[in-house]
Amino acid sequence: MKVIVIGATGTIGRAIVQAIGNRHDVIPVSFSKSVIRVDIADRASIAKMFETVGRVDAVISASGLAKFGPMSSLTDADFALGLNNKLMGQVNLVRSGMDYINDNGSITLTSGILSRKPMPGSTAISLVNSALEGFGRAAALETPRNIRINIVSPNWVVDTLKAFNMDPSIGTPVEVVARAYLQALEGSINGEVLDAI
Amino acid sequence: MKVIVIGATGTIGRAIVQAIGNRHDVIPVSFSKSVIRVDIADRASIAKMFETVGRVDAVISASGLAKFGPMSSLTDADFALGLNNKLMGQVNLVRSGMDYINDNGSITLTSGILSRKPMPGSTAISLVNSALEGFGRAAALETPRNIRINIVSPNWVVDTLKAFNMDPSIGTPVEVVARAYLQALEGSINGEVLDAI
Repeated sequence: MKVIVIGATGTIGRAIVQAIGNRHDVIPVSFSKSVIRVDIADRASIAKMFETVGRVDAVISASGLAKFGPMSSLTDADFALGLNNKLMGQVNLVRSGMDYINDNGSITLTSGILSRKPMPGSTAISLVNSALEGFGRAAALETPRNIRINIVSPNWVVDTLKAFNMDPSIGTPVEVVARAYLQALEGSINGEVLDAI
Repeated sequence: MKVIVIGATGTIGRAIVQAIGNRHDVIPVSFSKSVIRVDIADRASIAKMFETVGRVDAVISASGLAKFGPMSSLTDADFALGLNNKLMGQVNLVRSGMDYINDNGSITLTSGILSRKPMPGSTAISLVNSALEGFGRAAALETPRNIRINIVSPNWVVDTLKAFNMDPSIGTPVEVVARAYLQALEGSINGEVLDAI
């Protein structure tokens, strides 16, 4: 299958490319570090990416920014970042992608464990991650031509916890997280939230 | 308790006022039909409402617009309506309300059954309702002074189904829905999504 991986140079994206790269024709895309680039917060940039790549069998997104911090210090702009980038950026990959994904193809987005297991500081991120899960469940009822849509909700990744000086023992190895994307890509599930924990 | 009810002239809001009005000091607020008015999509309007009303023990919101329609025909503006109005409008009631809600008070927001039981046409609404539930769970971990926050997720209301010429037998009487708000107001629950079904 011809598969676009967006966020291909991130922690999870790299592991996805590693997991599916020898099984499929992967086109890595990122904000700044790949040959093909996209700013998912910009619909014109998404349109240009699809025009450049052409028709594909699947899109996998492991991309999107949202702000972590105490609710009392989050600004309107902090909430808007999550809404415009991680949330509507990925929603718009679905909306624009419908014209480029082949029959029986799939699109897989990324939310995160904070959707259902919040922590202090996660209000803006929990909002966005839950929104993606609700959107995905609903969008799966409307996709044309047997296109499937699923959401992977990764646990904290071990490497991310280490980078934030948090306890890595609560984390999931990124290779385990990547398997959920493989399952969404190659399986027949539709409208599911896959907890990669 | 002194309780602001926002959306007090709507189908659910009227039932909330009916259910709590003889037990508490209710201040009804709506977009256009009450003495005190608010446009929840406008942070300045929210600030003005709280300045007018002053300190309260609780805020209940049964308000917010979002667009129903096939994903393929929803515009950027349709998605933005839900994000700016029902979602961030209610989120901003929490953010601004923290300065006006008394110790041990509460705030109760409204999502809806489409968060977890979507239907064709519900992508923008399912997104918003799920976002509210994720936000509420997270915000409850950070509220100061024992302020509680909960989300009521109402089933379709019988009267709403009738108004849309849909089968009313799948609906819930609005009096039953109103009881969930009473439970959130007078109980001790925090960070919960109450399914009013």
